[in-house]
Amino acid sequence: MTLPEQRQPAIRVTLLPRDTNPHGTIFGGVILSYIDQAGAIETRLHGADRVVTVAMEKVVFHAPVYVGDLVSFYGELVRLGRTSITVKVVVEAAPPSAGATPRRVTEAEITYVNVDPTGKPVPVRRTTPRARGTARP
Amino acid sequence: MTLPEQRQPAIRVTLLPRDTNPHGTIFGGVILSYIDQAGAIETRLHGADRVVTVAMEKVVFHAPVYVGDLVSFYGELVRLGRTSITVKVVVEAAPPSAGATPRRVTEAEITYVNVDPTGKPVPVRRTTPRARGTARP
Amino acid sequence: MTLPEQRQPAIRVTLLPRDTNPHGTIFGGVILSYIDQAGAIETRLHGADRVVTVAMEKVVFHAPVYVGDLVSFYGELVRLGRTSITVKVVVEAAPPSAGATPRRVTEAEITYVNVDPTGKPVPVRRTTPRARGTARP
Amino acid sequence: MTLPEQRQPAIRVTLLPRDTNPHGTIFGGVILSYIDQAGAIETRLHGADRVVTVAMEKVVFHAPVYVGDLVSFYGELVRLGRTSITVKVVVEAAPPSAGATPRRVTEAEITYVNVDPTGKPVPVRRTTPRARGTARP
Amino acid sequence: MTLPEQRQPAIRVTLLPRDTNPHGTIFGGVILSYIDQAGAIETRLHGADRVVTVAMEKVVFHAPVYVGDLVSFYGELVRLGRTSITVKVVVEAAPPSAGATPRRVTEAEITYVNVDPTGKPVPVRRTTPRARGTARP
Amino acid sequence: MTLPEQRQPAIRVTLLPRDTNPHGTIFGGVILSYIDQAGAIETRLHGADRVVTVAMEKVVFHAPVYVGDLVSFYGELVRLGRTSITVKVVVEAAPPSAGATPRRVTEAEITYVNVDPTGKPVPVRRTTPRARGTARP
Repeated sequence: MTLPEQRQPAIRVTLLPRDTNPHGTIFGGVILSYIDQAGAIETRLHGADRVVTVAMEKVVFHAPVYVGDLVSFYGELVRLGRTSITVKVVVEAAPPSAGATPRRVTEAEITYVNVDPTGKPVPVRRTTPRARGTARP
Repeated sequence: MTLPEQRQPAIRVTLLPRDTNPHGTIFGGVILSYIDQAGAIETRLHGADRVVTVAMEKVVFHAPVYVGDLVSFYGELVRLGRTSITVKVVVEAAPPSAGATPRRVTEAEITYVNVDPTGKPVPVRRTTPRARGTARP
Repeated sequence: MTLPEQRQPAIRVTLLPRDTNPHGTIFGGVILSYIDQAGAIETRLHGADRVVTVAMEKVVFHAPVYVGDLVSFYGELVRLGRTSITVKVVVEAAPPSAGATPRRVTEAEITYVNVDPTGKPVPVRRTTPRARGTARP
Repeated sequence: MTLPEQRQPAIRVTLLPRDTNPHGTIFGGVILSYIDQAGAIETRLHGADRVVTVAMEKVVFHAPVYVGDLVSFYGELVRLGRTSITVKVVVEAAPPSAGATPRRVTEAEITYVNVDPTGKPVPVRRTTPRARGTARP
Repeated sequence: MTLPEQRQPAIRVTLLPRDTNPHGTIFGGVILSYIDQAGAIETRLHGADRVVTVAMEKVVFHAPVYVGDLVSFYGELVRLGRTSITVKVVVEAAPPSAGATPRRVTEAEITYVNVDPTGKPVPVRRTTPRARGTARP
Repeated sequence: MTLPEQRQPAIRVTLLPRDTNPHGTIFGGVILSYIDQAGAIETRLHGADRVVTVAMEKVVFHAPVYVGDLVSFYGELVRLGRTSITVKVVVEAAPPSAGATPRRVTEAEITYVNVDPTGKPVPVRRTTPRARGTARP
């Protein structure tokens, strides 16, 4: 397989038989769990310190994921509110063979709220785009 | 706690420390995994035999779930297409103490497609409402 | 499958490949884990607040459980002591196809002791049958 | 801790935070899972090739098990039938500190049936006591 | 935190309470599991199709990893034999707060052998450096 | 299978389908996790109270491990420093059939450092060989 070169994944994993559903493909709940984590990581790049998930919209499963696939979760900012951040997570999977092209398997839009240790919403700190690294335009 | 009496849960579990996120509450990905399964169970009551998840809409997390909570996932039919079924899943949690009232913690709307063993969409078989049991109006 | 209509399950789950034994059927230890939890939930309906398992008797495995089965765990009071509660848990499984009849796969009798936060046995609070919900006679 | 010297454990593990119940001690279901496996291992020492668990009796939980404990499961033959084998499993736990004495935490009696690949009961092959190793009288 | 910009991780995850050891930090076995997978992914970029791990050398644990850390596993080619590939995996962890600098926590050198479906060693296919993506010098 | 009679395993388990890699054999990461734990247990027999893993050397995977295998991890002292302990762990696996001879599947050398609760290295307490039990020469 080829590692995509321009974008940094928030999460990237390879999946095992323990992650399968009764059909033998990867269980959607496993993908959703990583999407939730990947989106939270993206919020940190925009100044959030501690977030809770408040909503998920437009989760679309385009294609099944298979055991052994390398699965990459890419986050991208959709909307930055005062205490909330909405991010899009795009999931790509590639079989474990040299030169295989990743295919888009799932995407989702998730809204998080930045909270203090007691769970009360607090404003997101403003950051410069530089904090994300120059490889992410 | 009191077991709700009028509705049959598609899934009901009690959650453990291994299901927590870094904040110490139940990880959203665990809840999403059960929602995906609960919705699939609901589709079976309406004639689906083998389903794949194609989309999730309007997942709203109202409140955190705690270790030890009894968590019930209720399915309800939203739309019955030729090969697709959309269901709503409502999640309620109650602490493990006698007489505790369940609170609504999450809800979601999920669309599944009925498929044959090769993954090709096939029409949902029509069933009578009776198949769901008389306790479910 | 049909959801049984008269009884509320203490626990209901659908099982995955990660729950199998080397024979490919569901690992007995997974069933026992849910039985332990289901019995503890039943004790809460009878006034227990925090219980520890002290004994299991008469666990009988009638039939194997398969990947994809919907498995329901029903609790029922056997004996209510001053600090202990004995419950029976009946496990029923149904394949995930419309109209499938659940079959009884396992049953067990478990004794719990009600304890305070330091682990010392304390009397069970007396509750009215109403607390369990009118659907459970 | 000291490793007991006269007996060979069927299973020995050290337990982690992911194995805890909401009280913070080891979840009984985890112990029961290992008991089921340990008993099956003991049946192999007596000529069984492939077993299914048919019943558990007299499971007694004497004391809690803690995170980090080294837990040993010892099997011992109770009754050898034509196609069935009943074994006792004794569970001992020791904290992870030098010289700690193991304490008996759980015991159980389990009956297995020897089956062929189709699940039909078949007679247990007779073995000589030597097969078990000289360290086990 | 800041996502490192020049290198593509073979694996990147965020770790949960279920991944902890009795001390409350991340269990070394969890890190080793991801290292094994990350190294195997790196071999695919160099023409391997199906690998088995034959040896690990020089695994050094520099610092503990904490719950909530974002952990990145970077692979790098060490030696390309006829049927074997040795890769180095460097593990970096960063706490989940904006601008946090990743620290090197573990590194390891692993040798894999390229095998056919029967497990017999087969020569690695030669690939051009381009296959790895231009972002990886 | 036959239980080896002269040596006490630090860890002994039987492995399940949830422990497999995409090839269907046991995932190396699972084996490495148990090796890390087995070595830590061995250090306790030599006076360590609380250890962290600092290095692994010479991990060699001789042969695959299969679902259902009984896997034993034996620890053995290599070097006892002032605050560090190096142990060798030998892993043997046997299929679950009567009289099967265990085969050596993996071995590793691991170095641990004895630490106080704050993580600072502290000297290992000196113990007598007797503490290990007379069955271990």
